[in-house]
Amino acid sequence: MNKEAVLHGNTEDFVYPTARNQLVFRIRTAKKELRECKIIYWNRDDGITKEQSMECYARDGLFDYFQGKITFKKVARYQKYYFYLEDIHGEIWYFSTYGIGNMPPQSGFFEYLYANGNDVIATPGWARGTIYYQIFPERFYNGDYGNDPVNSETWGTVPTRENYMGGDLAGISQKLPYLKELGVECIYLNPVFEGDFNHKYATTNYFRIDPMFGTNEEFKELVRQCHLQGIRVLLDGVFNHTGVNFPIFQDILKNQEQSNYLDWFLIEKFPVTISKDRYECVGAYPYMPKLNTANPEVRNYIIDVMDYWLREYQIDGWRLDVADEVDIGVWETARLALKEKYPECILIGETWGYGGRQLKGNQLDSVMNYLFRDALWDYFGRKEISTEVFDNRINTIIALYKEETCQLLYNLLDSHDTERFLHICGGDKRILKMAAAFQMLFVGSPAIYYGDEAGITGENDPDCRRCMIWDGQADQDLFQWYQKIISFRKTYCCIREGSYRTILADSEESVFAFIRYYEEKGTSEIIYALFNNSSGQKKIFCPMLETGEYVELLSTGEELYQAKPLTGRFYNQDITAYKAAIFVEMQPYAVKVIKKKEGTNQ
Amino acid sequence: MNKEAVLHGNTEDFVYPTARNQLVFRIRTAKKELRECKIIYWNRDDGITKEQSMECYARDGLFDYFQGKITFKKVARYQKYYFYLEDIHGEIWYFSTYGIGNMPPQSGFFEYLYANGNDVIATPGWARGTIYYQIFPERFYNGDYGNDPVNSETWGTVPTRENYMGGDLAGISQKLPYLKELGVECIYLNPVFEGDFNHKYATTNYFRIDPMFGTNEEFKELVRQCHLQGIRVLLDGVFNHTGVNFPIFQDILKNQEQSNYLDWFLIEKFPVTISKDRYECVGAYPYMPKLNTANPEVRNYIIDVMDYWLREYQIDGWRLDVADEVDIGVWETARLALKEKYPECILIGETWGYGGRQLKGNQLDSVMNYLFRDALWDYFGRKEISTEVFDNRINTIIALYKEETCQLLYNLLDSHDTERFLHICGGDKRILKMAAAFQMLFVGSPAIYYGDEAGITGENDPDCRRCMIWDGQADQDLFQWYQKIISFRKTYCCIREGSYRTILADSEESVFAFIRYYEEKGTSEIIYALFNNSSGQKKIFCPMLETGEYVELLSTGEELYQAKPLTGRFYNQDITAYKAAIFVEMQPYAVKVIKKKEGTNQ
Repeated sequence: MNKEAVLHGNTEDFVYPTARNQLVFRIRTAKKELRECKIIYWNRDDGITKEQSMECYARDGLFDYFQGKITFKKVARYQKYYFYLEDIHGEIWYFSTYGIGNMPPQSGFFEYLYANGNDVIATPGWARGTIYYQIFPERFYNGDYGNDPVNSETWGTVPTRENYMGGDLAGISQKLPYLKELGVECIYLNPVFEGDFNHKYATTNYFRIDPMFGTNEEFKELVRQCHLQGIRVLLDGVFNHTGVNFPIFQDILKNQEQSNYLDWFLIEKFPVTISKDRYECVGAYPYMPKLNTANPEVRNYIIDVMDYWLREYQIDGWRLDVADEVDIGVWETARLALKEKYPECILIGETWGYGGRQLKGNQLDSVMNYLFRDALWDYFGRKEISTEVFDNRINTIIALYKEETCQLLYNLLDSHDTERFLHICGGDKRILKMAAAFQMLFVGSPAIYYGDEAGITGENDPDCRRCMIWDGQADQDLFQWYQKIISFRKTYCCIREGSYRTILADSEESVFAFIRYYEEKGTSEIIYALFNNSSGQKKIFCPMLETGEYVELLSTGEELYQAKPLTGRFYNQDITAYKAAIFVEMQPYAVKVIKKKEGTNQ
Repeated sequence: MNKEAVLHGNTEDFVYPTARNQLVFRIRTAKKELRECKIIYWNRDDGITKEQSMECYARDGLFDYFQGKITFKKVARYQKYYFYLEDIHGEIWYFSTYGIGNMPPQSGFFEYLYANGNDVIATPGWARGTIYYQIFPERFYNGDYGNDPVNSETWGTVPTRENYMGGDLAGISQKLPYLKELGVECIYLNPVFEGDFNHKYATTNYFRIDPMFGTNEEFKELVRQCHLQGIRVLLDGVFNHTGVNFPIFQDILKNQEQSNYLDWFLIEKFPVTISKDRYECVGAYPYMPKLNTANPEVRNYIIDVMDYWLREYQIDGWRLDVADEVDIGVWETARLALKEKYPECILIGETWGYGGRQLKGNQLDSVMNYLFRDALWDYFGRKEISTEVFDNRINTIIALYKEETCQLLYNLLDSHDTERFLHICGGDKRILKMAAAFQMLFVGSPAIYYGDEAGITGENDPDCRRCMIWDGQADQDLFQWYQKIISFRKTYCCIREGSYRTILADSEESVFAFIRYYEEKGTSEIIYALFNNSSGQKKIFCPMLETGEYVELLSTGEELYQAKPLTGRFYNQDITAYKAAIFVEMQPYAVKVIKKKEGTNQ
């Protein structure tokens, strides 16, 4: 056995409570190495030994990942445990603190001490699998010409980093029926507080809506309207830095060494002028001075702002700009302060890499899942990686984040900071449709960047911030596709809340398939999602969990499939037990979603 | 190459700032797999690529652990990086987010975003390698007969869980000269607040010294006296639970459902009586009801207590009882609140396993290093593990904790919760002396449990809490040994602050040796520590870093050794480059400390 591959530790990455009386245990081993993985556990108090088989929940390029969920009668505490690993040759190994051996350990057991209330991975229920729609307010819709900046340009002008087009809150409010029709469930607004630039990432006043977007009252009304429509609202929290017109920074510019607020920023040299060598700022942008979040006053100010909009405007949470550049003390403190009052609010951090540091349970609920974006760009968009590599990367995401976190991950195809996906895939709508379907069928929370559904394309910033297309100019076929896959997502709880397994990743044919499945209290639901990521027509041999009659759900006509029993092994050591298979014809870049016909026999 | 063995992630276990302009990078690989490990890095802003060789700083049973420390001109931020791994066959591998391949990655780089002030691993300077002395106040010395409990028994009576002997603060105060003579640098007092039982782990009043130990004024004076002697003082913070006489618990007992404080404890059933099925308590002890630390009032109360004794009595820090049973929100909040005001205070958590969860930089500074205790018990004390296994376990400790944390680890041989080491090793003083020398020569902060130096033995609680021996009854030979190794520790900065490397771990002969070395600004210092963990006389062939004349430092006579050049390889792929060797005769259970004679040539 590859002992070096085995990974588990008594830290929150590998053992964590999902309720005060429930623990999840995780362990990693080398790929296809085990035929059985068990946890042997007992309570320090009573010493009664129990065991539970662990399930292989993900498999990537190198590893298998096992998980076991154990529910206790009372609070989970004083659990000592070790692992039983039986490899494919029948050899038996035991794993505990002091490593791996052939005999059960006599000491050095792992131990989980106490599931305290604050240790529980508690996520807002509404956010599990919810559908986001990201709006860049300046470019969505101009609902009120009265608040346009004086130098506002014609709607649809080529966007630059400087120009304004007049989008505003009134515009969003007027287009709520459109969002409702599309089917989205939560809008995430890029910054709306008073600030510099059309993107407003350089805040002047954290307590005021920028006048060019509207008033605080209008915002309150917008949230109210959204809630009435069943749409939630997230704001963009830009707490890493301010704009130079932020009053406290102005105080420093004015009073220099005499300012009482020197500790709010990270001054490097006097006199302070608007220049990147005088204070720490975002990259080389002197217009975004970085806040000193190690200063408790600053930390408390940030939490006050977060609290204010949750309390007074009933927003549903925060997307936190460059969350990974802000010290973790801010998020720890914010979580404790806010979740106490608003347990259902969501905190989503921006990060472009693995967000594990923020997702241990004591800081944020979710992150922008750029690892997901990367995989979809590289596989569907750019055709730069094989199906197998794609599968590995998707499974690594599922493996590394907690199951509860995966359901909340903000799964994007693009954003205001990237090229549009349609640009990445060379303008091929079929590929965008396929990627969007993948997004909608995958675990987590699919996020649509405004206008993707209308066929807007664009290079990176500022081109990705083009004006939204209205008045029948938008791509109706795309819109309907989005509508369909969204409504589809809402129909099946296995898509919103179910588990995930890859069932086919064929690099040669460029075809990929997965299942989403959900089983609880007697009901079970499985859907099969198939993707042909090639320009050729393909006939896919797809393994199924059960024999019976199946139907394709996205096509207009009723495509039927007969799943016939598999004779002999299909894949050696697959983590899913297949009993049957179907043949499916697929057009280039086609997606199919297949489900067992109600009432058919196994 | 064993790719599954390679471990690194962009989390605080693998990349962390030791200053705002300095980062430590760590990566793990399979044992003896690499001949070169480099980090390739560049700043997102300027894109200028640099590289640095990483040093193998530890090796255990399965893995090699590499570390690189990089200092930047300004604050460490926006660093993208990946690893270059050259294996012993000359094959070259690259490792980044998406795994290991033979070509440098083109995307998916690791990234370190921003070294904020609060993210820096800042530890109190005084605590690096300091020598602790743990006192169980009821059993150390009776300095004031006036405050003895009425049922106090004769000093030296066999200890039970119930009896009292009259030890108090006045006793500690009167025995400061003894502690000074021994050479300890910081005393850690088991609980002294008003509470139940002779151990006082069931607190009644967190703001008052227990009257049987003295008064708050006496405590203030004790701290003042200690500080005048250069001895620091830690208190035992028992914040997981209280005693049943804690007024708020009494309020619940009295007012039941009508109490305003129901949320302070974890009530399970009314009426609340002193019974383990009515509320959560420590194990099965109803006399220690568990506090509900998820309640912000409780959290703030705890921090108030911690702050009070730091502020009003100038204590130097807290040892935190069952720190791993308290939710992490408490320690996160406490750290932010206290370190702001008392940056030099230390927070040491009790944990019996790996304490990584508390030591990420945002909670505690150190833990009681029971993994160290386990290794020394199993190897020196019980002879249950081979020298090689011992070496692996010692190196795992060094590998898993940050270097800065290792220097602060509370390295104990025993405590008020365990058998005494002298009991474990069958009363063989030679073995205790050897283990104590190991403790004093090793990385971290050696902790003496009161009386070990006096030859007190004892089984587990209550026997390990025997009265301290005074008036010439104590073991003078042991005391002098402790004095000697303590003074020795203080003489050489390589012991207090230097690095560690095992240089010999011979299971057949049961001999073990390591070096401690320190190099800074032109000065360098190395000592060699050798241990014969067997009942036989041994002649040890010990590898040395340099040729030259060496002297043994613990013996009374001046033992000299001539280190002769090594011809040919010594150990294949050792992580230390040996150039010479000596032969050393060692008596059973002997320790030798060897250092190059000043002024001798290489």
